[in-house]
Amino acid sequence: MAGRLSVYQVAKIVRLNVLPGSSTQKGKKATSFFKNQKAATVSIPWPSSVIYGLHQAYSTVAEKPKLMENVTSACLHNSGKTCFVVWKDGFHTEFHSVWLRQNCHCEMCRHENGQRVLNPANIPTSSLMQNLFLEGTKLKVTWSGAYGNHEGYIPLSFLREHNYSQESILARRKAVKCEKTCSKIPTITFEEIKQSKDGLLKWLYQINEEGLSIVNGVPTEESMVQEVAELIGPVEVTIYGNTFDVLVTPDPINVAYSSVGLDLHMDLAYYESPPGLQLLHCLKFDACVEGGESTFLDAFALVDQFRINYPDLFKSLTEIPATFQKVHYKRDNPVHIVNQKPHIRLNHLGEVVAVYWATPFEGPLSVDENEVMRYYLAYEMFAKMIRDSPNLLQHRLQPGELVVFNNQRMLHGRQGFQINGGSRHLKGCYINIDIFKSKTQVYNNLFGDGRRAKRVGNQCWF
Amino acid sequence: MAGRLSVYQVAKIVRLNVLPGSSTQKGKKATSFFKNQKAATVSIPWPSSVIYGLHQAYSTVAEKPKLMENVTSACLHNSGKTCFVVWKDGFHTEFHSVWLRQNCHCEMCRHENGQRVLNPANIPTSSLMQNLFLEGTKLKVTWSGAYGNHEGYIPLSFLREHNYSQESILARRKAVKCEKTCSKIPTITFEEIKQSKDGLLKWLYQINEEGLSIVNGVPTEESMVQEVAELIGPVEVTIYGNTFDVLVTPDPINVAYSSVGLDLHMDLAYYESPPGLQLLHCLKFDACVEGGESTFLDAFALVDQFRINYPDLFKSLTEIPATFQKVHYKRDNPVHIVNQKPHIRLNHLGEVVAVYWATPFEGPLSVDENEVMRYYLAYEMFAKMIRDSPNLLQHRLQPGELVVFNNQRMLHGRQGFQINGGSRHLKGCYINIDIFKSKTQVYNNLFGDGRRAKRVGNQCWF
Repeated sequence: MAGRLSVYQVAKIVRLNVLPGSSTQKGKKATSFFKNQKAATVSIPWPSSVIYGLHQAYSTVAEKPKLMENVTSACLHNSGKTCFVVWKDGFHTEFHSVWLRQNCHCEMCRHENGQRVLNPANIPTSSLMQNLFLEGTKLKVTWSGAYGNHEGYIPLSFLREHNYSQESILARRKAVKCEKTCSKIPTITFEEIKQSKDGLLKWLYQINEEGLSIVNGVPTEESMVQEVAELIGPVEVTIYGNTFDVLVTPDPINVAYSSVGLDLHMDLAYYESPPGLQLLHCLKFDACVEGGESTFLDAFALVDQFRINYPDLFKSLTEIPATFQKVHYKRDNPVHIVNQKPHIRLNHLGEVVAVYWATPFEGPLSVDENEVMRYYLAYEMFAKMIRDSPNLLQHRLQPGELVVFNNQRMLHGRQGFQINGGSRHLKGCYINIDIFKSKTQVYNNLFGDGRRAKRVGNQCWF
Repeated sequence: MAGRLSVYQVAKIVRLNVLPGSSTQKGKKATSFFKNQKAATVSIPWPSSVIYGLHQAYSTVAEKPKLMENVTSACLHNSGKTCFVVWKDGFHTEFHSVWLRQNCHCEMCRHENGQRVLNPANIPTSSLMQNLFLEGTKLKVTWSGAYGNHEGYIPLSFLREHNYSQESILARRKAVKCEKTCSKIPTITFEEIKQSKDGLLKWLYQINEEGLSIVNGVPTEESMVQEVAELIGPVEVTIYGNTFDVLVTPDPINVAYSSVGLDLHMDLAYYESPPGLQLLHCLKFDACVEGGESTFLDAFALVDQFRINYPDLFKSLTEIPATFQKVHYKRDNPVHIVNQKPHIRLNHLGEVVAVYWATPFEGPLSVDENEVMRYYLAYEMFAKMIRDSPNLLQHRLQPGELVVFNNQRMLHGRQGFQINGGSRHLKGCYINIDIFKSKTQVYNNLFGDGRRAKRVGNQCWF
């Protein structure tokens, strides 16, 4: 695919990695900037466009094209333990010797396919920079240390993209937060997603940014849900098989296969990594069937509100783990999965990166007896917020409609229904979260504006 | 499967859920035990054996059969907010009203297939017990509260199994820790695992408890690795497809497909949930090939040692996240996955539940500049411990051998090699961690001694 890029597409990829807005222009205060400067300072204007391999091309949205290679100067600092790099647009930041050494791009350190050959675990932290200078689009560095001397380089675009000043990290995080809460389910046609890359990209954006999408006009054949899924990636096989039928069955192995209402939940919350996407294709939904509307609620938006309104209760649900389980022996393939995890998971900076909610699959709470009531009080309030949320989306699927939603973000459920002699038949399947994330980012980079895919799973993006 | 259990197998399942050893006999100090007792106390001996549905049957190893239904008394406490239950063997523990209410087993609250019908999120924490009494193998309870009055019951075996006294929780945790470190790779024959449930169970034990196993006598056909995998569960499709060939190829999409040595690592560490099992089937390994031995190291055992020797460095690696990534556009299906997570993950009690180590797939460290050196100093020492470990296992696979290992626990690698005109061809695939864990627990319960499966993933078992 990479080999068939148009000039236009390449151009899109080149203008990446530029931090938007002026507030991110300062990695360091200029006053203390050159204080301990000891070695070479170079000042050169750089060629206006260079592609640094596609395999490194991703970043925040570029508001307007800027040149990452426009570095004014680079200088050693702190006896070679760190260096400063200053860009023409005023942005400046510091890099550690060992960080640079690990990210050396010379042919000894990286295979030309982009994979690192150097084992970073062999680089001693005591490696110091001896010298550095700017050459073309590269920062060339020589190191000394226990591992021996080394000469190598790091592309300036790489430095700009991966710099770790606090402002840059903050900006990158902001870029991946899901901020758009859907008030009406976006739609797209089957023809659009099937026929063109633009259509598929639009669909991926809808799912990634709004959490769900309805595809219209999908032929009502049993095999279609898998065919649609494979436009994104291979179907994830779970304990429910490759695909599954949501249909009233006698002696159902899951209450979903009956006509009772289902409260908002996520599927397979007891998995280490619950499926990322769920697809439900409506094959039959007779007019005589009363009820059965699908419901959706954005858990990420809800938990933000919970955090603001009840910070202590929020904290309890991040600290005290619930038990999620599927223990079921009366089925063809008995299942026994138990995983304990908190309803809300935070990353190292305290940002919410996952919400788990699946009341039918909660096993007995198994935490220190002194934590039991603290858990239940928080749980009760969070449950109330879910129940009372004004942001519930409701939709009665029509035959030929296929709803796809982020199972790790959008809670889903359905109203109970009366068959009345008719029939309601959905066919479903799942797609792994990493496969979806990858596809979205690849398409954003190759055919879109190169923005970072929003955070979707229980890890942070960067 | 459940329908075809022999009496012997059922008997195995019945004698579960008993905490081994005398130290766990006291859930509460007897002195303060009846202090605030307010209501009914009953004292009845119970029938000697009752099966509480197979779907609830799992627990620690029973050293000798005991009767979970042998409750001496149960009494209300604290105005009905909690109650105490005392067993004949001296074990006694406290339960909260809301915990019991959520775990009510009456037919209104649970479907007969074991799935909960009651939505626990609808139970107010203010529900109080009004009364309770022992009847047969059940603790019968009446509750009052905002949700209305309710009469229901909880099986005594369920109470014993899921009680949450500190001692019980500690004993259950201990039961799932991987304590056996393999000094010689266990083996089994293909015939054994294929022909009998006992053979398959033995194999699952090896993998779950020792981390890896070599299956001998697997026909050297390309399809066999998948066939062997499916004895456990469906193959997990990844970015490397359904199965993959480890073979020297020109312009490899992964360095594994070349002849260079591979340092110890785990596969797909950049996934939210890296595959649980990896299978590598040796199809060809000519005698003229020099090198190419497979290497393995138990990361769980190593990290325990790291924690003891360098507690501060250990702490750094639990707090500061590394970047794991696979960003590769020069392949048929471009991949772009970036996940940040710490090398060592702890659960809510500070126990290690995951180790991630995959140096070829580390992206640029992206953490606050003030944390950078703290990270690298810890990383350097942990890397040294991996490099210098005396516990490295090494094995030259022979055609017909199939090694299977826990990819989340056993780091693996290989020596570089020289083809010398010969050939070295392994065929591999993966199995999802939850599927493996489930199969192991189901087999332990149905055909084994009912012990809990060891912790294998990045979650805790309970």
